[in-house]
Amino acid sequence: MYLKNTWYVACTPDEINDKPLGRQICGERIAFYRGSNNQVAAVEDFCPHRGAALSLGFVQNGNLVCGYHGLTMGCDGKTVSMPMQRVGGFPCIKSYPVVEQYGFIWVWPGDAALANPALIPHLEWAVSDEWAYGGGMYHLNCDYRLMIDNLMDLTHETYVHPESIGQTEIDESPVNTHLEGETVVTSRFMEGIQAPPFLANAMRANGLDPEKPVDRWQISRFTPPSHILINVGVAYAGHGGFDADPAVKVSAVVVDFITPETETSHWYFWGMARHFKPNDTELTERIRKNQGEIFAQDLGVLEAQQQNLSNHPDRRLLMLNIDSGGVQARRMIERLVQEEQKELA
Amino acid sequence: MYLKNTWYVACTPDEINDKPLGRQICGERIAFYRGSNNQVAAVEDFCPHRGAALSLGFVQNGNLVCGYHGLTMGCDGKTVSMPMQRVGGFPCIKSYPVVEQYGFIWVWPGDAALANPALIPHLEWAVSDEWAYGGGMYHLNCDYRLMIDNLMDLTHETYVHPESIGQTEIDESPVNTHLEGETVVTSRFMEGIQAPPFLANAMRANGLDPEKPVDRWQISRFTPPSHILINVGVAYAGHGGFDADPAVKVSAVVVDFITPETETSHWYFWGMARHFKPNDTELTERIRKNQGEIFAQDLGVLEAQQQNLSNHPDRRLLMLNIDSGGVQARRMIERLVQEEQKELA
Amino acid sequence: MYLKNTWYVACTPDEINDKPLGRQICGERIAFYRGSNNQVAAVEDFCPHRGAALSLGFVQNGNLVCGYHGLTMGCDGKTVSMPMQRVGGFPCIKSYPVVEQYGFIWVWPGDAALANPALIPHLEWAVSDEWAYGGGMYHLNCDYRLMIDNLMDLTHETYVHPESIGQTEIDESPVNTHLEGETVVTSRFMEGIQAPPFLANAMRANGLDPEKPVDRWQISRFTPPSHILINVGVAYAGHGGFDADPAVKVSAVVVDFITPETETSHWYFWGMARHFKPNDTELTERIRKNQGEIFAQDLGVLEAQQQNLSNHPDRRLLMLNIDSGGVQARRMIERLVQEEQKELA
Ligand code: FES
Ligand code: FES
Ligand code: FES
Repeated sequence: MYLKNTWYVACTPDEINDKPLGRQICGERIAFYRGSNNQVAAVEDFCPHRGAALSLGFVQNGNLVCGYHGLTMGCDGKTVSMPMQRVGGFPCIKSYPVVEQYGFIWVWPGDAALANPALIPHLEWAVSDEWAYGGGMYHLNCDYRLMIDNLMDLTHETYVHPESIGQTEIDESPVNTHLEGETVVTSRFMEGIQAPPFLANAMRANGLDPEKPVDRWQISRFTPPSHILINVGVAYAGHGGFDADPAVKVSAVVVDFITPETETSHWYFWGMARHFKPNDTELTERIRKNQGEIFAQDLGVLEAQQQNLSNHPDRRLLMLNIDSGGVQARRMIERLVQEEQKELA
Repeated sequence: MYLKNTWYVACTPDEINDKPLGRQICGERIAFYRGSNNQVAAVEDFCPHRGAALSLGFVQNGNLVCGYHGLTMGCDGKTVSMPMQRVGGFPCIKSYPVVEQYGFIWVWPGDAALANPALIPHLEWAVSDEWAYGGGMYHLNCDYRLMIDNLMDLTHETYVHPESIGQTEIDESPVNTHLEGETVVTSRFMEGIQAPPFLANAMRANGLDPEKPVDRWQISRFTPPSHILINVGVAYAGHGGFDADPAVKVSAVVVDFITPETETSHWYFWGMARHFKPNDTELTERIRKNQGEIFAQDLGVLEAQQQNLSNHPDRRLLMLNIDSGGVQARRMIERLVQEEQKELA
Repeated sequence: MYLKNTWYVACTPDEINDKPLGRQICGERIAFYRGSNNQVAAVEDFCPHRGAALSLGFVQNGNLVCGYHGLTMGCDGKTVSMPMQRVGGFPCIKSYPVVEQYGFIWVWPGDAALANPALIPHLEWAVSDEWAYGGGMYHLNCDYRLMIDNLMDLTHETYVHPESIGQTEIDESPVNTHLEGETVVTSRFMEGIQAPPFLANAMRANGLDPEKPVDRWQISRFTPPSHILINVGVAYAGHGGFDADPAVKVSAVVVDFITPETETSHWYFWGMARHFKPNDTELTERIRKNQGEIFAQDLGVLEAQQQNLSNHPDRRLLMLNIDSGGVQARRMIERLVQEEQKELA
């Protein structure tokens, strides 16, 4: 169950810089490439001639050329030419709206007529000099909604990531979930605690004393179809937490773009935008590496969970207060998918 | 086709000493672990909260803690606690009777109310100072009954293991099969022959002359659900064979506990209990290594056989006198499974 | 969709010299081996005793012995003997007509009564001293007819093999396809061009000047069930091309025997028979290695094409003039399969 008339992150620019990329998104096999003027383009990964994968071809004069017999495909899915052939009657293939923005390639896998680039969420951290970003991507063999659950309930940090970002105070602090329009917000605040190792390192990197008691915040924001941005950070205790002066805090956004591949697999784009020392590229790389290791710990947990759920499709799961973020996100997806299907019918 | 109201070997103690073990047995995914007082415990490998695999968690104060959000599961399948939650209404999961005995962890995958530890077969060689034991485990992608056939018809030794325990005299000696209650006994005796290399090595280790003619015996005993213990050995020819004085023979029990995983895969616990030089641990290890190599030769044969049978489900196999042990073991399983299902209905 | 009453290449002699070979051909699992007088033989890879794979056994006195319990199978599918057993009533298994000829083992997977060795095509290059041959084999996860398409439309060389045998002149030269009885012939001639690297190397090896303009030819001949022999070569321009004097040309046959394994996988026997410098074994090996690398470039293309077609079974492909060779070959296969099934009914 996933929305199709919406923008998903398809890939990062480096994945298509040298050659086309074939990637399945929401059940659609798509060839991504850089066309004329380096503009990103996306068409069905199916050559109308004999069905070869266009992503195995190459780009010439801004068009994707099939690597089998040289059919030249246009960005709009219409064949441009083929050696010694008249191509006027060739059937069209689908083309997909794509936009390169904020350091990502965004794709609209549904009805192209409805695609509106203005619907791509504004990402301040991606355009401001005050922020630095680093991230990566994982492929997971599980329903993308299990990843949404994971990120909307950070209780799991205590158990899955005990030596980096977890700490028992997470468990012991109440979690609050509410809706802001189509945004599900779930937050947790801990006061007068010790920063866990990952954040203590960040404090040190920002010139703060990692031994001092801090106030810690986690504010997860889900927006459809599956974007989750989490404000995280610590400030010296009693200085206002999230709202404290930059001089006494480390503040960042955990970035999660989750893109369905099939019903039971997805692409997970993760990263961290940091609101301190934005020019320290070595720090960016160190955080990226640490975060990558931490987030890799979730993969086995989620894939085993998927296997359990696939084996027991009828078993009902609990929906506790800590699950409220995930549950409300799922409900919103469900409602929007129903609307989408109603429009189709 | 397998019995469920019975004891199977689930694992060996070393497999759960450091952390929980997730293993599928008779179609049930089970988490095994050491609870309070180091007692072994087993519950469904499915967290009632969101379906995570409990076996990926850890043990705390004798209880299994889910590694996802910290639900503490009791040995009886009832949730003990969860941070910030009332757990009284949480659904129970299955727990499984388990017993640690004779160097194995035994599990009862069926109706727990019927489990009786007294039904675990007595294994004298596992408790007596006069015996030494070494063994290992293999996973096979074939019906566990193909392994029963294999072990109840040792003719195959001549062909699968020609350089270790096989010899043409096995083929040429009649095999005798009979029932003793629920035990299928199939035996073969060879007189005045040369010991094959594996047994010649055993003779040498026991201070006997491996060049002398011997009487050799093989007495396989199948008991439900799938235990096979095989008396094997050689004695100087003419001294009474199996009943000969310990001074002129080497005598051992090949131990085979066969545990279904699915209809077409199983766990195979193999080993050898030896009735000579019990304190020679180096000898134990040498025999274990050799036996492991010999038994590994069967894996490819049985898995290819399974593929052939899966491709030709309607083809009838021959049932010769040499197959009688396996055939009777299968019939007994079939009868007991029918009884079990009758009781269920 | 494949013919069964016909000869396919099953393997090369070296594959059965040391031990039996188990290989699936047209859906049939077959054990190939050398029987008495080194004669090749082939039987179902299924022991009538308990279904073991006979190909895991060994040959003794010209018969295949089952590696499980020693049943001796005859080349005709009738059990010859088994230790301590009367085998008169044992069910027969299929045996398959096999012929060793032209450096290949040929098998007839269908009705043995119809097998006629005279139907194996005559291969002059395999028996004449004037020719040298080198080749290899690949396994592909795609319908064997995709390989036929590939070889009957050499346009793909320009795109898949641009640095070896491809050149834009291929695209720009018209292709001609016609039937000669049951042979589909598709040919292309290019005049006054530069030899591409692979052929330039061949010219050099044959003492010709690779810089000189040449006439190039490609004449593909498909014969049922799936043999494709392609006359390829270049001659100094204006000397008659294919018919030019041997002193001014390099001439060879690309050899392709394509054997279905299942509906979506096949064995591909490829090679090159060369009509110059036949005694230069080092040259044979060099060409074999180069050709192997070139042909390996097709594997990924064809397997991705198969995945696309499997995902879109209803999508119609284009049939252009360049596809005519493949299309006519497929039509012929289809017609012959229908005839075969009519005879069966
Ligand atoms: S399959 Fe793409 S050009 Fe032929
Ligand atoms: S899934 Fe086990 S505690 Fe949440
Ligand atoms: S299975 Fe072949 S001899 Fe028993």
